[in-house]
Amino acid sequence: MSVPRPAMILAFLFASICLRAAAQPMAGFDSARALSERSLEVKFDASLKADNMRDWMKQLSSHAHHVGSKGDAENVSMIASLFRSWGYDTHVEEFTVLFPTPKLRVLEMTRPTSYRAVLAEPPVPGDTTSGQTAEQLPLYNCYSCDGDVAGELVYVNYGVPKDYEELALRGIDVKGKIVIARYGGAWRGIKPKVAAEHGALGCIIYSDPRDDGYFRGDVYPEGAYRNRFGGQRGSVEDMPLYPGDPLTPFVGATKNAKRIPMNEARVLTTIPVLPISYADALPLLSAMGGPVAPEEWRGALPITYHCGPGPAAVHMNLEFSWDMAPIRDVIAMLKGSSEPGEWIIRGNHQDAWVFGAGDPLSGLVSMMEEARGVGVLAAGGWRPERTIVYCAWDGEEPGLLGSTEWVETHADELAGKAAVYVNSDGTGRGFFSAGGSHTLELFINQVAREVTDPETHVSVSERARAAQILHASGTERKGIRERADLRIGALGSGSDYSPFLQHLGIASMNIGYGGEDGGGSYHSAYDSFDHYARFGDPGFVYGVTEAQTAGRIVLRLADANVLPLDFGDFTETIGRYVGEVMKLADDMRESTEELNRNVREKTFELSADPKDPRVAPKSEDPVPYFDFSPLQNALAALERSTHRFGEAWMGGRSGGGPLPAETARALDRLFMDFERTLTTKEGLPGRPWYVHEIYAPGRYTGYGVKTLPGVREAIEARKWKEAADQVVIAAGVLERAAALVERGTSLLKKK
Amino acid sequence: MSVPRPAMILAFLFASICLRAAAQPMAGFDSARALSERSLEVKFDASLKADNMRDWMKQLSSHAHHVGSKGDAENVSMIASLFRSWGYDTHVEEFTVLFPTPKLRVLEMTRPTSYRAVLAEPPVPGDTTSGQTAEQLPLYNCYSCDGDVAGELVYVNYGVPKDYEELALRGIDVKGKIVIARYGGAWRGIKPKVAAEHGALGCIIYSDPRDDGYFRGDVYPEGAYRNRFGGQRGSVEDMPLYPGDPLTPFVGATKNAKRIPMNEARVLTTIPVLPISYADALPLLSAMGGPVAPEEWRGALPITYHCGPGPAAVHMNLEFSWDMAPIRDVIAMLKGSSEPGEWIIRGNHQDAWVFGAGDPLSGLVSMMEEARGVGVLAAGGWRPERTIVYCAWDGEEPGLLGSTEWVETHADELAGKAAVYVNSDGTGRGFFSAGGSHTLELFINQVAREVTDPETHVSVSERARAAQILHASGTERKGIRERADLRIGALGSGSDYSPFLQHLGIASMNIGYGGEDGGGSYHSAYDSFDHYARFGDPGFVYGVTEAQTAGRIVLRLADANVLPLDFGDFTETIGRYVGEVMKLADDMRESTEELNRNVREKTFELSADPKDPRVAPKSEDPVPYFDFSPLQNALAALERSTHRFGEAWMGGRSGGGPLPAETARALDRLFMDFERTLTTKEGLPGRPWYVHEIYAPGRYTGYGVKTLPGVREAIEARKWKEAADQVVIAAGVLERAAALVERGTSLLKKK
Repeated sequence: MSVPRPAMILAFLFASICLRAAAQPMAGFDSARALSERSLEVKFDASLKADNMRDWMKQLSSHAHHVGSKGDAENVSMIASLFRSWGYDTHVEEFTVLFPTPKLRVLEMTRPTSYRAVLAEPPVPGDTTSGQTAEQLPLYNCYSCDGDVAGELVYVNYGVPKDYEELALRGIDVKGKIVIARYGGAWRGIKPKVAAEHGALGCIIYSDPRDDGYFRGDVYPEGAYRNRFGGQRGSVEDMPLYPGDPLTPFVGATKNAKRIPMNEARVLTTIPVLPISYADALPLLSAMGGPVAPEEWRGALPITYHCGPGPAAVHMNLEFSWDMAPIRDVIAMLKGSSEPGEWIIRGNHQDAWVFGAGDPLSGLVSMMEEARGVGVLAAGGWRPERTIVYCAWDGEEPGLLGSTEWVETHADELAGKAAVYVNSDGTGRGFFSAGGSHTLELFINQVAREVTDPETHVSVSERARAAQILHASGTERKGIRERADLRIGALGSGSDYSPFLQHLGIASMNIGYGGEDGGGSYHSAYDSFDHYARFGDPGFVYGVTEAQTAGRIVLRLADANVLPLDFGDFTETIGRYVGEVMKLADDMRESTEELNRNVREKTFELSADPKDPRVAPKSEDPVPYFDFSPLQNALAALERSTHRFGEAWMGGRSGGGPLPAETARALDRLFMDFERTLTTKEGLPGRPWYVHEIYAPGRYTGYGVKTLPGVREAIEARKWKEAADQVVIAAGVLERAAALVERGTSLLKKK
Repeated sequence: MSVPRPAMILAFLFASICLRAAAQPMAGFDSARALSERSLEVKFDASLKADNMRDWMKQLSSHAHHVGSKGDAENVSMIASLFRSWGYDTHVEEFTVLFPTPKLRVLEMTRPTSYRAVLAEPPVPGDTTSGQTAEQLPLYNCYSCDGDVAGELVYVNYGVPKDYEELALRGIDVKGKIVIARYGGAWRGIKPKVAAEHGALGCIIYSDPRDDGYFRGDVYPEGAYRNRFGGQRGSVEDMPLYPGDPLTPFVGATKNAKRIPMNEARVLTTIPVLPISYADALPLLSAMGGPVAPEEWRGALPITYHCGPGPAAVHMNLEFSWDMAPIRDVIAMLKGSSEPGEWIIRGNHQDAWVFGAGDPLSGLVSMMEEARGVGVLAAGGWRPERTIVYCAWDGEEPGLLGSTEWVETHADELAGKAAVYVNSDGTGRGFFSAGGSHTLELFINQVAREVTDPETHVSVSERARAAQILHASGTERKGIRERADLRIGALGSGSDYSPFLQHLGIASMNIGYGGEDGGGSYHSAYDSFDHYARFGDPGFVYGVTEAQTAGRIVLRLADANVLPLDFGDFTETIGRYVGEVMKLADDMRESTEELNRNVREKTFELSADPKDPRVAPKSEDPVPYFDFSPLQNALAALERSTHRFGEAWMGGRSGGGPLPAETARALDRLFMDFERTLTTKEGLPGRPWYVHEIYAPGRYTGYGVKTLPGVREAIEARKWKEAADQVVIAAGVLERAAALVERGTSLLKKK
């Protein structure tokens, strides 16, 4: 046989993929260009090498590389020079941000016995970097304020608002106390915020073994889960207010940017907060008294969980160096041949809390290999139609600093040029998942149908669907089976898509693999190369799959005749959200009536155990009926215009062949404008940095999304007037969106 | 003031109770007799003394008093002589039963390290009797077979059938292995039965701290919950087949009864089974490997729970003395004045596994005080219309021996005379709860509305309703609020009502208080006077409330013009059961279709983690549509006849005044026959001892009830032909019941 093996395999692969994919539509492409695009993807796939990812991860995780560290600077240089070597026009953009690091950390129990918290993660056998303790940032929560406080402990479960309702029901107040919360249930920054709102003096956050320790699986180094000394670092900046450098809201943190004084930075905590391991939490929790904690609050420590307050009391003293530090984003561009002014932006952060093999390097090295593959194609003569921009963000961990400052700095240019932002972060073995603008749902589904899962050899879409079906309830299952596309999630916060989507209105997505890479190394010194290579993605096979997926996404977005956005799934999804906020009002009305009835009828008092007494909650003002008709009418308008657009599109396409270039360009502009239209100049009530009226991180969920956030959060906060106002604002946004879609229909009919 | 205080209080109480109760109907009484009955109840209440209960409990729990022990014999004498002293015609009835006790108990881990189980409950400070270790039965499961076995361990969660499905999904077979199950989830006797059905060699049952240890609350002696060495003794007789002496099914275990050979006693286990503490379980469970147990299986030990098999292996050697032992029931009668041939039977067992303060003495001493109070009334000149029979059962713990043998011995007499059986067992602080024949639901509710909760001073009915409302789902809550009566549960097994209700068809009920007496002393040596007096019911105030409740029940049943049974609630409840079995078939049909579809579509394989692989379940034969029309028609007939009876009753009563004596007697007989009518001669498939077609303990739930058991269990077991047959049988029973109700209507119209 004279055909060399790799080429033969390539030919076979191409044939089989084309056979399977031939019938698959490829949004934004006519059939001829779809064929050549698929041929390009086969070449792209063939260039991907797991070993590169492994080598880069090993190198990039060989030293701690948090903001301001030597490791961070070295990694930035390495990444930038690699991008240059692959043919990208690469530069490093630097900002200067507030980045506090610990000077003093004391946590000691003073009553009923003494215990001084260890606050350190010791080296473990078989984990090479865990011995490099000198270069590690110690366990701390970034943007905690300084504080020297003492008081009795109160256990507050996850420390979210409803946990304080449970405490109140037991007559427990945290005023003047120090709360101890467990990680989980909401983003960590919510915990000190809510604790402070309730008058607590300090906040301890510990990792309960139930949530990511031995309850879940064997602990490191035997297994992947958090061991007794493992802690979780992390930011507690009040990101739901605004992310990025605390001192430069709304503007890029360039060298000479106007900065607000630190005491005006409302995103810093108002009480000191410290993360600890469960080895350090156990003596504290064991020494607590008061009522036994509600069943759902109890973790996996071998103790009876009590709420307190006391008798355990602690002293906590935190001091930070409030330094300014440089952050450096690597920006690498591959200019588009026909539409250089339309940018497809692809990003993943590179900074970590410690060694960061899983978070973020697993996603970063996959993106790098993807970029190298794209570079190989370019070196072979191919050029993207649109400009591709790869970004390796710095300072994501403290608060999306690198992406936010870049977005704020280049807001005007991005408003004109940014077509789609594609984000990833840590990734690993398991199932494909995606979140994003619902105009991208159809497109993402098409890609996921053409990427093969390395474990089961069906498409990653089919595998994700199987898992969803198996874990769904009866009605959900029916929906999953009957709907052509898998639903993508809506985006809240927690990674670098937030400024693109929620501050500028750029259609965005976040993709990754996971679910079989479980473990408890998150934000600990044990998130190391050794850990990842054993548990995260042995052999880096899912790293390759991620590169195949994101590579297709980037290539198709860059090459499509018309941007592959779609209004159908978006409009259907908005219909669901409108239904949800209406149901929210109805459900709250019913539960308020129920609460008030129980207060009147003394149900709480009568059913309580006098030895574990209850303080009946207060009755609440009834939930009014809202005029949702503006929202309903706007939705109906959007549905009508979406339908007409679909008809015009099908009509226009039925003759086959590409759209006229002029129409395609106009449609591209319209698709780009569409997401911008979903924003308002005023932004959300009380947090004007967030201007998107469909997606926002929740004020009290943090990472967790709130859709139609203005309306939803006003109802949840029982601000009836604001809710009514927000209905009108959201309706206005949807009316404008509908009008834009109408313009699209006209464009299609005109051609 | 010359009126002595107690008398004044009595007068006040009487006035206030009469005011509150005056408007309350009293089933079975005309208004004049209701008034005098309430006056009797006030006198009865006034006679009750908490101190008596305390003193008796202290005495009766001062020594271990299991079957065959010196303590048991002494307690029987004491109880009998007390009943005699209160004026009852009292005798002790003795039976001879098979009662094995341990000769040898060895449990040792042989791999990967050695550990020999302690199998003992040490004395604890502040618990007087815990030091009396010599007289205690050690930790064992009664009616375990002998066995010397060795093998690898498999963790089977609660050890119920669906747990083995989970293991199969992970490719784990227990054949030739020793299973370790945790207590809970079903009656303990189910665990070795199901393990043996799956080929296991032996069965260990341990008390996980999640279920009644530190996860729930502080452990003994600091708190009420099970400490690390606390174990749970208990019977593993296959009671769902038949209870009572294993050697004398169907007949009383009198001295010369014909006994079956031991190897024909199908209620003994076929593999050895041993209960252990979590101190003994921890080394075994810690040493296990294999897949991590499903999340719901994980207990509160500070380990990762693995399923096995192995590498931990154990050797288990159990030998028992298979002795015959005497059991002695105390039977105390107070002859009825007008209807001596109608018996109101009231029972509570007195035997315990060790000291048994909570189980059963809390219920027993309350029943004794109640009986003393009734005796005081009798000494004052009052006589019940019907005969009252108090029973202090022996041998309940090994398998309802005392009640079952008595019922089997006196079956013919009881069939003629027994009107209602009223059972109690351990009781404590908290909420009123009741289960029983639904012909008694209305009556029980009437009583519960007239007993005052000592903690909240509302009726125990109102308090129970408040608790139900607070813990119910939305739809349930609506039902609870809108229905006049609280629902009573249906009875499965687990106490002495079983032979009365399910073997003879005698209308029965089981009542008690609890829910605030939580703890983990059940069947351990720590179920002591000290434990109960601190946590079970300090001050014995609920003991008094229980006596007030059961006392009213007994007095009203004994004194009513007509037995206070009612067909309305019964018929409505049967309607629910019929709906449930029809829904069961539909749900199983749907889940079978779903399963088969997932098997076809390889959903299990596709969604499984290759590193934690799944063996897809086999597809199952589809669930046919059943002809439920016989059951529906019988129900409709019952509904019609119940409605007509209600009309006739109201019509007959509207003139006021008592029913003619002859009608009343005929109705009494009819009410007594009604529950008998719900039985069949053949009994349930495969277990002819159980003849009730509405209520039975589940074959695989043990204590847990199955209503319409013939139909329900046939469907659950996928025996389609049997299900269809059982529909006809159940329908026949309901048709006969409807005919009986029609006869009642005729009686009422004739008068």
